[in-house]
Amino acid sequence: MEDKPSGTNREGQAIEPKLRERIWRIIFLSDTKAGQWFDIVLLVLIGSSVLVVMLDSVEALKIRHQVLFSVLEWIFTLIFTVEYIIRMCVVRKKRNYALSFFGIVDLLSILPTYVAIFLPASQYFMIIRILRLLRMFRILKMAHHFGQANVLLNALRASSPKISVFLFFILTLVSIEGTLMYLIEGAYNPGFSSIPQAIYWAIVTVTTVGYGDVAPMTVAGKVLSSLIMLSGFSIIAVPAGIVTAEIGREREMLRMDHRKCKQCGWTGHDPGANFCKHCGCALSTH
Amino acid sequence: MEDKPSGTNREGQAIEPKLRERIWRIIFLSDTKAGQWFDIVLLVLIGSSVLVVMLDSVEALKIRHQVLFSVLEWIFTLIFTVEYIIRMCVVRKKRNYALSFFGIVDLLSILPTYVAIFLPASQYFMIIRILRLLRMFRILKMAHHFGQANVLLNALRASSPKISVFLFFILTLVSIEGTLMYLIEGAYNPGFSSIPQAIYWAIVTVTTVGYGDVAPMTVAGKVLSSLIMLSGFSIIAVPAGIVTAEIGREREMLRMDHRKCKQCGWTGHDPGANFCKHCGCALSTH
Amino acid sequence: MEDKPSGTNREGQAIEPKLRERIWRIIFLSDTKAGQWFDIVLLVLIGSSVLVVMLDSVEALKIRHQVLFSVLEWIFTLIFTVEYIIRMCVVRKKRNYALSFFGIVDLLSILPTYVAIFLPASQYFMIIRILRLLRMFRILKMAHHFGQANVLLNALRASSPKISVFLFFILTLVSIEGTLMYLIEGAYNPGFSSIPQAIYWAIVTVTTVGYGDVAPMTVAGKVLSSLIMLSGFSIIAVPAGIVTAEIGREREMLRMDHRKCKQCGWTGHDPGANFCKHCGCALSTH
Amino acid sequence: MEDKPSGTNREGQAIEPKLRERIWRIIFLSDTKAGQWFDIVLLVLIGSSVLVVMLDSVEALKIRHQVLFSVLEWIFTLIFTVEYIIRMCVVRKKRNYALSFFGIVDLLSILPTYVAIFLPASQYFMIIRILRLLRMFRILKMAHHFGQANVLLNALRASSPKISVFLFFILTLVSIEGTLMYLIEGAYNPGFSSIPQAIYWAIVTVTTVGYGDVAPMTVAGKVLSSLIMLSGFSIIAVPAGIVTAEIGREREMLRMDHRKCKQCGWTGHDPGANFCKHCGCALSTH
Repeated sequence: MEDKPSGTNREGQAIEPKLRERIWRIIFLSDTKAGQWFDIVLLVLIGSSVLVVMLDSVEALKIRHQVLFSVLEWIFTLIFTVEYIIRMCVVRKKRNYALSFFGIVDLLSILPTYVAIFLPASQYFMIIRILRLLRMFRILKMAHHFGQANVLLNALRASSPKISVFLFFILTLVSIEGTLMYLIEGAYNPGFSSIPQAIYWAIVTVTTVGYGDVAPMTVAGKVLSSLIMLSGFSIIAVPAGIVTAEIGREREMLRMDHRKCKQCGWTGHDPGANFCKHCGCALSTH
Repeated sequence: MEDKPSGTNREGQAIEPKLRERIWRIIFLSDTKAGQWFDIVLLVLIGSSVLVVMLDSVEALKIRHQVLFSVLEWIFTLIFTVEYIIRMCVVRKKRNYALSFFGIVDLLSILPTYVAIFLPASQYFMIIRILRLLRMFRILKMAHHFGQANVLLNALRASSPKISVFLFFILTLVSIEGTLMYLIEGAYNPGFSSIPQAIYWAIVTVTTVGYGDVAPMTVAGKVLSSLIMLSGFSIIAVPAGIVTAEIGREREMLRMDHRKCKQCGWTGHDPGANFCKHCGCALSTH
Repeated sequence: MEDKPSGTNREGQAIEPKLRERIWRIIFLSDTKAGQWFDIVLLVLIGSSVLVVMLDSVEALKIRHQVLFSVLEWIFTLIFTVEYIIRMCVVRKKRNYALSFFGIVDLLSILPTYVAIFLPASQYFMIIRILRLLRMFRILKMAHHFGQANVLLNALRASSPKISVFLFFILTLVSIEGTLMYLIEGAYNPGFSSIPQAIYWAIVTVTTVGYGDVAPMTVAGKVLSSLIMLSGFSIIAVPAGIVTAEIGREREMLRMDHRKCKQCGWTGHDPGANFCKHCGCALSTH
Repeated sequence: MEDKPSGTNREGQAIEPKLRERIWRIIFLSDTKAGQWFDIVLLVLIGSSVLVVMLDSVEALKIRHQVLFSVLEWIFTLIFTVEYIIRMCVVRKKRNYALSFFGIVDLLSILPTYVAIFLPASQYFMIIRILRLLRMFRILKMAHHFGQANVLLNALRASSPKISVFLFFILTLVSIEGTLMYLIEGAYNPGFSSIPQAIYWAIVTVTTVGYGDVAPMTVAGKVLSSLIMLSGFSIIAVPAGIVTAEIGREREMLRMDHRKCKQCGWTGHDPGANFCKHCGCALSTH
């Protein structure tokens, strides 16, 4: 994803390529002690800066700790600004980085504080401030540190096509269910005053969230929604089944047999095989 | 499901059978580029027409965009009418198609707009308009385009007998639980004023939807419902287990191979095996 | 469970043992056409009688259809009385049947209607009437008709020890969580006025039912309950895992290999085995 | 965890080491009949004492049964005090036990009653009384009695790294979702007045608890929350998948056997196999 630093292949030309390379390695990779420390510190900084923005949205706290929050925000912003500048310096293909998703995130998450100076509290001000929360995406960027993350992501990625089909069916289902409930309850129950509203209810129900802000009132409505719930009951099992099956397969892959046939070079025999299943020559027993 | 077009096996007799066959292939099959484009366009048209009907049910929008909605509705209706007529022309066994489920759906989903002219806003009017939403079923008809759909459907179909038995048990269970709660809460809590009402509550609870429109008030009621919830907790696991097991079996079936080794009689070779993995003798390739 | 009819092994003595035996076979077994029909009719009768009792608990319906309901109830009661008498006649060990669970259920479910004559509407009257719903248990008695039922029951039975341990942990968990919430919210939130009340809330939350009749109000309470929900999130997975694993094992058992070793008579070799794994003699390849 | 009693390896020196050892064995182990009985009695005592504390928190009961509760509490306290003293006597490394988690729990759970004498009803009094509920943790200490507990705990322990990663993702997800909802609903809906509040809602929603104390009101909010629910729908499947896979692996591990055939080098025989199932030569019994 990240390209090699400027100094790497044109020795001497760049100013102190060694240093530049070391910094690049620390910032973009995490194969060195320094690089790992950098990531951890960054993670903590992002986490706390995000926390500050969130707490800043609480009216009561905002009034009491206004100064503290803005000071903290400035500290964070300056740190991230410095980090951004360093990143731009050490990375080689500056344009590529600047236009990469995380390059834009890095930029957008520091701009708001500066913007705040020039255009004071406007109606769009809040939305701009919120942009700083884009930093959260950078946390996800570090997910690869968690060993288990990949297994999960693979399983999710592998099951995503199945699940998207599943969601498509769900959408059709809730549309039909919602329409029926609209016909039954619409006249008596403000919560079913329109089909989209009824579909919202159907989604809340099928996913077993069940806020209760909308609930059937008529007898017919309660009978139908009982059926919907019981069906949703078995529907909710499907994604679980898909993901479980995928995780199971993930593990199977790991259990595969890595012997290679001497004759035809075929691999992927099962643990039980005495002979290559393609050329029939005996397999070495490991 | 769909039969071959008129022109296919009686050359020359039908007017330009070639053209008719091509149209038939485009409309009913999706093995040609044109056919796939036709399906995609149709999918979009149906989707947007369904959306219009739904938005039309929102009072606020209906008043503001009345004209727009009716114009759009007429456009959609005319398109679907033309499509319906073409279908009738190119298909051979006209009666079979007209009486097939999707034939009726196609017809019912275009009629309402025309009916609306002759009998203006009546009390049944809304229900008639809703008929147009039958188009949604035609979306399901195209499900076969999604590669994964079949795997899911097979798993669901395979587990449906188990799940229906499961639902039967659930129904008996909620009846018993509802009756008990009716005896305990009935006198004090309007939400348990009758057994069916109490059963409705039990279903809402066991499926973990939990609207909260009905909730226990007495101590005994809360104790019992706690037990019901904790039992429901493990009950909800059953369909998940069933579906998961079925999806797992689905995958197994695909991996199986039923050839038998002539020499050692060993069965259960993997697909693609040329030689018995136990005695090494060649396998007949089926 | 049911014993053989009187007439079977003492020929001639009992009056027409043949007839008695046939009736016994029809009522208690379902291996004959007549027996299956008897079960189906009985199932329908029980179902509809249960339905009547339930609808009878709805005030509105009770007032309108009072006569209809009582007439229907009398018809059902008489039918079930006749059935009970016949059962007593044809069965041999009368005492055993009379004192068996289903014998008592059969009796208790017909008594209320007769009792109703002698002691008119008393406060305990409703509870007595409800006794008729015991008939529902007789439906469960017929579960063995559903082929799939056994697989499910086996899986549930096999996982019940694990699940009961699981429920024990849950109970300890919700007690701890409830106590903590009581300490945090108790003073401000009527919904957490006592520890049992708070435990009730914890159960409603961990099972993801979430009525909303009790919900945290303080910030600390919301933070803690967020943690509880997220933990419950992964806890809810455990029973699913247990049941799934059990259903999977169920299937494995069926896949077992039934060859028998000629030498040591050992069975239960795996599909892959060429030699008996106990005595080492060659296995016949099926 | 527990160390051997004082008297064991220094004969004669300690006063009646035999007796002391026997008592130690009864209290700390459960390999003797007496030891098991001791555990059962203790379990019952703890259970009922915990129950008393809980009921004592119910205002109504507290007033009515004040005397009964305090008497019971004193009985329990004295019993547990005696038990604590005996434990201290028989155990050898007194400091280690006193400072061990369960040593502290044992102490803290008896102190409150004595403390209650010296400082009468203060504001911190309730919290102190609650300390007695720490006894619940001692119940968990006895979990090893439940055969199945270990399987569950292993599965949970094995899946905990995956699940903690999963929870980390969830936290980031709900933060993003909460922020979006705050931007959409914040201005109109008191339930989304701040980002933390909105995150609380997102957690309540994604975990499908859905209290309904906070629910979207605007159209945009309902659309977004519908998407959140449907995504949560498939997210909830992940922990189920993880735990199921782990429980499955648990079972596999138990079935594995790591002996290697001397002749054909085949591994993966089942436990109990005496001969290689491929070449038939005898297996070394480990």
